[in-house]
Amino acid sequence: MSLDTLLAALAENRPAVMDELREFLRFPSVSNRSTAEGCGPCADWLAQRCSALGFDTDILPTPGQPAVLATLSAPPGAPTVLVYGHYDVQPAEPLDLWDSPPFEPTVRDGKLFARGASDDKGQALMYLAAVRAFRKANLDLPVGLTLLIEGEEEVGSPNIEPLLQQNATRLDADALLVSDTTFYDEKTPALTAGLRGLCAFELTVTGPDRDLHSGLEGGLVANPAEALARLLASMKDPDGKIAIEGFYDNVRTLDPADRDAWDTLPFDPDRHARSLGLTELAGGERHLPPLVRNWARPTLDVNGLTAGYQGPGPKTIIPAQASAKLTMRLVADQDPQRIAEALQRHVASHTPPGCRAETVVQSLGRPVRLNTASPAARTAQAALKHAFGTAPVWIGSGASIPITEIFQRVLGLDAVLMGFGLPGNRIHSPNEHIELDQLDRGARAILYLLLHLPGV
Amino acid sequence: MSLDTLLAALAENRPAVMDELREFLRFPSVSNRSTAEGCGPCADWLAQRCSALGFDTDILPTPGQPAVLATLSAPPGAPTVLVYGHYDVQPAEPLDLWDSPPFEPTVRDGKLFARGASDDKGQALMYLAAVRAFRKANLDLPVGLTLLIEGEEEVGSPNIEPLLQQNATRLDADALLVSDTTFYDEKTPALTAGLRGLCAFELTVTGPDRDLHSGLEGGLVANPAEALARLLASMKDPDGKIAIEGFYDNVRTLDPADRDAWDTLPFDPDRHARSLGLTELAGGERHLPPLVRNWARPTLDVNGLTAGYQGPGPKTIIPAQASAKLTMRLVADQDPQRIAEALQRHVASHTPPGCRAETVVQSLGRPVRLNTASPAARTAQAALKHAFGTAPVWIGSGASIPITEIFQRVLGLDAVLMGFGLPGNRIHSPNEHIELDQLDRGARAILYLLLHLPGV
Repeated sequence: MSLDTLLAALAENRPAVMDELREFLRFPSVSNRSTAEGCGPCADWLAQRCSALGFDTDILPTPGQPAVLATLSAPPGAPTVLVYGHYDVQPAEPLDLWDSPPFEPTVRDGKLFARGASDDKGQALMYLAAVRAFRKANLDLPVGLTLLIEGEEEVGSPNIEPLLQQNATRLDADALLVSDTTFYDEKTPALTAGLRGLCAFELTVTGPDRDLHSGLEGGLVANPAEALARLLASMKDPDGKIAIEGFYDNVRTLDPADRDAWDTLPFDPDRHARSLGLTELAGGERHLPPLVRNWARPTLDVNGLTAGYQGPGPKTIIPAQASAKLTMRLVADQDPQRIAEALQRHVASHTPPGCRAETVVQSLGRPVRLNTASPAARTAQAALKHAFGTAPVWIGSGASIPITEIFQRVLGLDAVLMGFGLPGNRIHSPNEHIELDQLDRGARAILYLLLHLPGV
Repeated sequence: MSLDTLLAALAENRPAVMDELREFLRFPSVSNRSTAEGCGPCADWLAQRCSALGFDTDILPTPGQPAVLATLSAPPGAPTVLVYGHYDVQPAEPLDLWDSPPFEPTVRDGKLFARGASDDKGQALMYLAAVRAFRKANLDLPVGLTLLIEGEEEVGSPNIEPLLQQNATRLDADALLVSDTTFYDEKTPALTAGLRGLCAFELTVTGPDRDLHSGLEGGLVANPAEALARLLASMKDPDGKIAIEGFYDNVRTLDPADRDAWDTLPFDPDRHARSLGLTELAGGERHLPPLVRNWARPTLDVNGLTAGYQGPGPKTIIPAQASAKLTMRLVADQDPQRIAEALQRHVASHTPPGCRAETVVQSLGRPVRLNTASPAARTAQAALKHAFGTAPVWIGSGASIPITEIFQRVLGLDAVLMGFGLPGNRIHSPNEHIELDQLDRGARAILYLLLHLPGV
């Protein structure tokens, strides 16, 4: 079976694959909405595409958004590769900051702009492109291939664990591949060895039963927006260390080997700051090196604030309520449930008098460390080198893919995180995009991997 | 000239006056909008009503919203009373908390509900009702009467000072009456001897040039929403004292006579807290008595917060920007301009690294102390006792009517603040209202005053 034949077929299919990707990106499959109305049709479409390629396909319902499960059986004696991806996307707001509509894919300067272009529709669809190349070349896959594309990754995959448990037999595989991460930098492919966990919650401070006149009641009534600010400020020391009691109890000491390896990675803090419109990288524990802060230390970020009057001009009120959205990123071996409880104790003991505070946990995900020496990991290294011309580096990631820990725990599979997005892809932000060349080469890496996995 | 004749005429006119008030309240004359489109038509309508009652009426343009100036000349040798009021109102948001539409006046349980019913359209219109009673009774006013009803009180009267200067001759008067305050409690009329000043501003903290992924950049990039929270928390000690350097430098020590008088006023902190849906009054400098905190001490309140994602569910971002609206209430002899500068110095020296902070001053107003022994003040005391059956008490107020200080400085007139709203009128809040009985008796007090002022 010749890789060249398959690459030629891949190239020939490219216009059709791009059309297919544009269709995929047009679904506003935002999973955090109360209706999430764009998710169901997107899953239906995706299942139909898998069936057309010969997969045995099911749409698996969940209490939230459905997942698509598609299988191609392995030839006798051959291994099976399980691929995880997600078709859901982050909200596109603020809409006015997009240069082209988020759900109308647009190519500019060799980049495809759309919500989900990089995270994760663009990357996930390249597995279908690889299978299509086999079909075009009239070749059978040398391995079994199972696709599990879910619709709730952006809300913390709340239903994936029972889904894995209920479908464990059908999901049985020899390797797990996930393409939902990025290169280390524009030129350096990477395999991700560790991901942070997540603890997302909403904190609401309530005071009077209505907005009050800030003159008539000012000096009498405690201000919920001020109380919220005090609570948020109390959660972190000025040096960036999180001040919640017990928060660091289970944080693993950084492995000196990791630290040495990371020290050799090129990282220019000033250049990175400038690329974000900043003059310095002043977040997190500032006495630590940036990559350590981002990959090996937990963080707490305010994602949003809402209180009182937000229109133009002044309005002299004491708002009845104020709320904040918060996410913590956790590292091994922090337990999200215990961290959530520590936070709730902190809020209870730091709420200023005259107000009530309530925290609602919105999602939890464990941190994860992955096996870097498996046959699949080694084949992925070779595949990336083949497709991109540069050997990948092993990196950490500040982001969370909670499913990696769940797959590890429920199915005993360590994911190989072979992403081909670039760090500048503005995922979760306006103008998310992916380079067409990264998609093309990503599909080639997948082909290489499917072809070479049996040989390792 | 008989007061009884005039009171009978007032009663006879009541249905027509109520119709007129409803028309007045239907204008959405919100002055803090960029367009403020409801203000001009409201001023036109008001001027037309004054002309119809025989006033010599002008609409005075300003760089913002117009003011209505209407004069009835004094009989020879008689004094002239200047009345100040405002036709502009606070924004009505949040609209969903109103039981009836804010600009569709509705009577329930003897109360008239509408934005501006108490603050200040309802009170201001009672001066027209008084003049209408003279007309009905075919009597001339025994005094001159000048009405100045402006359209920018709710945004801090930014244009009233040049307007007073330019119209000083026409505004020349022997007394200044303002009905834009409330009773001390449901049963106790009050005259206000002091008002707090105001310093309103917007504080914006800016970080990266776009919203960022809180995993990929968390630990690297300083969070503007957290920085805003730290800045706000830094402005006040946990005991409620404002921590801005120099803030209290010019705060006048409380006059022991005032303190003794205020100690005799009935005030039940628990009852007041309960009336606002609270269990305690924990705002301001908690070691001081409530009335002192509200009337004689400055305060700082957050009026609104905006940052990042505010929709349902989580969104894992570091927001590009965060902002707060703030108002300070100032007391004699704080200077708003110096306080604004002190705040700006505080912000500059307390902004956490990695973010930029900017303050925009939106309005300034000086605190004021008024003469409690003038003939007009004594006549107002008698008028309130006559109309409401109870002698008024002298009180302070936590609110601001910046024009009182401007009238004092520019025209040499000390306002008599003879308000007949009630503390529960929910001004600036949803379901603002005024009791019809307070309007009726307020108009009677005005008639009494106009009739008796020459005699003092």
